[in-house]
Order: sequence, then C-alpha cells, then structure tokens
Amino acid sequence: MNLVLLFKEDFVDPSTVVLRGRRFEHIKRVHRAGVVDELTIGVANGKIGRGTITRLDDDGVEMRVDLDRDPPPALPLTLVIALPRPKVLNRVIASATSLGVKRLFLINAWRVEKSYWSSPRLADENIRAQAIIGLEQARDTMLPSIETRRFFRRFVEDELPEIARDTMKLVAHPRVDAECPHNIGEAATLVIGPEGGFIDAEIASLERIGFRAVSIGARILRVETAVAALIARLY
Amino acid sequence: MNLVLLFKEDFVDPSTVVLRGRRFEHIKRVHRAGVVDELTIGVANGKIGRGTITRLDDDGVEMRVDLDRDPPPALPLTLVIALPRPKVLNRVIASATSLGVKRLFLINAWRVEKSYWSSPRLADENIRAQAIIGLEQARDTMLPSIETRRFFRRFVEDELPEIARDTMKLVAHPRVDAECPHNIGEAATLVIGPEGGFIDAEIASLERIGFRAVSIGARILRVETAVAALIARLY
Repeated sequence: MNLVLLFKEDFVDPSTVVLRGRRFEHIKRVHRAGVVDELTIGVANGKIGRGTITRLDDDGVEMRVDLDRDPPPALPLTLVIALPRPKVLNRVIASATSLGVKRLFLINAWRVEKSYWSSPRLADENIRAQAIIGLEQARDTMLPSIETRRFFRRFVEDELPEIARDTMKLVAHPRVDAECPHNIGEAATLVIGPEGGFIDAEIASLERIGFRAVSIGARILRVETAVAALIARLY
Repeated sequence: MNLVLLFKEDFVDPSTVVLRGRRFEHIKRVHRAGVVDELTIGVANGKIGRGTITRLDDDGVEMRVDLDRDPPPALPLTLVIALPRPKVLNRVIASATSLGVKRLFLINAWRVEKSYWSSPRLADENIRAQAIIGLEQARDTMLPSIETRRFFRRFVEDELPEIARDTMKLVAHPRVDAECPHNIGEAATLVIGPEGGFIDAEIASLERIGFRAVSIGARILRVETAVAALIARLY
C-alpha cells in the first residue's frame, strides 16, 4: 500500500478521516505507523496528498488529510481481455490498474472455459477490491471502469467499433509476423486473447472491424506478464 | 505447460522418454492426453520438437521424441534484482525466465529485509523449479543462470563492472527524470531495486561504475510487473 485510498464515507469532517478494517490493519502492522507519522493518501477519483496520524488505537486510525496534487496521468488505452482463469484474475486486474488502465473489458472467447464465468471472483466487490489494490500500489486514485461481456460476437460487432473509435486497434496474437509497435504516443484499444489464443474466426471478426493482429515474439507469456509487456511496449 | 521440458535422465533410449511425477500428472490431468496424442517437447539446453505418446498408464507416460527446431532466441540482457519478498520470488523467476532472461542475479540492498535471505524459496532446487516453469510457459529450453549475492557493495564494485562490460547499463529508479529507452537493439544490464527503491548511496555506487538511472513513470509497480514492463520496453 504505497497510497492509502480514501472514500467519502471515511471522512468525519472535511479534513479528517477515520479508518478501520483492512487499511487500518495494514497501517498498524505493515507500515507500523503511529501518531504524527505521515502517510501518502489519496481520495478516490480525486487528489493525492498526506495524511498525518492524529490518533491510533485498537479501534482504528484517525488522520488529518492534506490534499495537494493530481494523481498520475491515465493511460490512453482501453484493454479488452479474454476472461483469464480465476486464479490469475485478481493479479491481472490489480496489475492492469497499477499500470494506469482506466477501461477494461473482460470478455468471452472460444477458448475461455465456461466454468470461469461462475467464479466468485467476478463479483463486483472483488473486482473493485482488486482495482483498489492496483491503485494503492501505483499511487493512483482514479478508479477504472471494469465490465464483463459474456458474448464475444455481440460485443465485437455491436459495441467494440464504438469503444475503439479513433484509436489504434490492436489484437495481440502469438502466431503472426507483424510486430507490436513501440511507443505509439496515441490512444489505443488492445485486445488480448485467452491461454491458447483466439481461434481464427475470432481474429477474423476483429480484423473486420479494423483490428490489426500483432505479436511480441515467439514466447507464450502468462496473461499478467503479457499485459505488462504489451502496455510497456506501447507507451 | 506449453512445452514439456525433458532431461537426460528421462531418456530410456535416444528417441524415447518415460515421465513420472509432476510432468506426468500435468499431461494426464491438464492436457488430458492419451496414446498417439502429440505434445510440444524440448530437451533442456537443446532443441524443440514433438513427443508422441506411445504408452500412458497409472505409472507414467512414454513418448517417442522427434526434435527439429531451435528454442526462441535468448534476450541479450543480464538482470540484477534486489531480492524480492519470498511470496513473489517464484513469480519473478518464472516471469523473467519466460521473457527470455538467461542471466539473473538476486542481490542484497539496504531495503531488502534480512529475513528474506533465510527463505527456503532460495534453495537451488526451488529456483531451478521456478525457472523450469518459466521455460515451459514460453516454450524455451535454455536454462538460465540464477545466482544470489548477499553483499551489495562487494558485488557492485568487484563483479558488476565485468558482468556489465560492453552493455548498456541501466538502473530502474522511480525518482529520476530520465526515461527508460525504448527498443534499444543492443545488449544491456538492468538493475532493479527493492520495494521502496534503492537508497541514494546505492544509486551512487551504480552510477560510479557507469550505470544510468532511468524511470518508467510516476507509478510504483510490483516487481514482477516492473520486470515485464522494463524488458518489453527495452526489446
């Protein structure tokens, strides 16, 4: 937790928060902070600054809050990922959020196992919790929008053209010769397939609406590694 | 396991292997493979090809092995990472290996907690096992060299100048203005600090032997995300 993310309901007056639960435990046990210590804090969807601890007991921690700067800039990237297996979903969300992604769609694909869609990790509260972990890691405050889409074709044909309008349209695919561009300096929409890749018909659907299949080499990467690698290459 | 990595001791004759244990269980339960199925295989530090299953029972799996191509090219990068917390060490090793790193040093630094050095995860067998997971993921066969160094200063002054000779020398550091270069097309030695970063004296030691401190932005990334992001940016 490189930043303690604060929400409206944490404020007891305009410049004071009281935290209990996970953030309080972390401040006490990991930061081992005490009265008068300062922590980097930020308000959800707002500014960043300092929290000075004014009280800390068994019940919770009280901080005086001083906000003075903007969060880091968002990435001009919409990320569309075939739903990964539940075991890695949390890491993918936290990692994409830490890298500055503000719009993420988790979609179905032929090679996404049906059972993944019934994972409790897809609950809104879990998705939000993982995004918060990513923001706290990267010292960001701007919550991403994360949505799921169970129908590949309907999403690609009916929604994606509008979502990707006026952006560079890329689909990461291991079996193509075109190299993923470096340092593009413009907005992009990046689609990443499931383990095993998209099937040809899915790539064709994406190509029909203007997506270009690009590769980052012969190596097959885990989805969380691929997400970080692709984003770092593009920006 | 996108590739089943084979070792000398698996061969019962020059073109036949018998596997038991982890790889056998994975082939049976995850690949759900049976007789006559083909799997991508590779020989440790050797070629890649196909294994055709000739027998599979409760005891193990036998394959006829046909090797016909080289593994993907190695990354011309030596990676030096401050020892991460045990919880993430496995992922860092597997991820760096999957990205093609062939020489990795895990070193001490002021902000590396002493207790990390007594983690059982630092045992040679575990480090090797994690590297194998990375190779299997990326369909590579070339085992990386992974070494630990408990003394920062001795390593940086006595060994690193020779290790990094004739390569671009970079240290990733969050609090500098210089941007990490893109797509360098040459060999490099990249040093990555601990959570919380290197202290000034450590950065100064590295700068004295020709390292340049570079940043990938204001966001603080988890070490495994930073490793993937930095490598993808450089190559």
